[in-house]
Amino acid sequence: MDQRVSFITLAVRDLAESRRFYVDGLGWNPELEEPGEVLMFRAGPQLILSLWVRSEFAREVGEPYDGRGIVPITLSHNVSRPEEVDAILVDAQRAGASEVGAAQERAWGGYTGYFADPDGFRWEVAHNPGPIGLSVLPT
Amino acid sequence: MDQRVSFITLAVRDLAESRRFYVDGLGWNPELEEPGEVLMFRAGPQLILSLWVRSEFAREVGEPYDGRGIVPITLSHNVSRPEEVDAILVDAQRAGASEVGAAQERAWGGYTGYFADPDGFRWEVAHNPGPIGLSVLPT
Repeated sequence: MDQRVSFITLAVRDLAESRRFYVDGLGWNPELEEPGEVLMFRAGPQLILSLWVRSEFAREVGEPYDGRGIVPITLSHNVSRPEEVDAILVDAQRAGASEVGAAQERAWGGYTGYFADPDGFRWEVAHNPGPIGLSVLPT
Repeated sequence: MDQRVSFITLAVRDLAESRRFYVDGLGWNPELEEPGEVLMFRAGPQLILSLWVRSEFAREVGEPYDGRGIVPITLSHNVSRPEEVDAILVDAQRAGASEVGAAQERAWGGYTGYFADPDGFRWEVAHNPGPIGLSVLPT
């Protein structure tokens, strides 16, 4: 098994609400859409971010947890300048994000802040000036 | 905010166990490693998969849930031939994966199966012969 992620799928409660946030709010363009079922976005050269209704997810993958606490993953959106981090956090808040934290300098040398999408999935907006951070930026 | 995922971070309980699975078991090569803290793999042209200890994740992002049920995300690993799906599920089981399901033909035309990593994160191994499936394969 090669080290490769092709799709990231997030189980969501209300696809219409997800659409309002990602499409109407953030201005993203769906790559594929089945209303009430799934909404897919290109998220990288060989990567799709798929939002899938929880009922379908539960049927195929298994019942997702439904309790307190944060889903133990984050998705990071890296940018090339620290100022972009602040600007995107403002945009996300305008788009309806919750739990929007102020960006902070991190011990590893970066500058990052988080927000939550309508299902509470945490996005990190990150300026990472190290080699690994630079390696993920669009060319 | 452009539609782009740069890092996927999974909060893990025991980084040594994650290492045994991904490095020793699946044969993946770390791109960056801080023992006891973080283990990163290149997972795409502009994508890093990062395994981060839960204690650090909790301090920065918030307390992750710790209950019953499946984390409401999957990561998919797409391949170009259906036979590869079966072969990779066997490899994953040998590497110590749990919850390894037999692959199935799906209503949308693909052939996929799932397994769980040491923290229960679900991976989907997928043959997706449609345009969006082909678009994520390595060139």
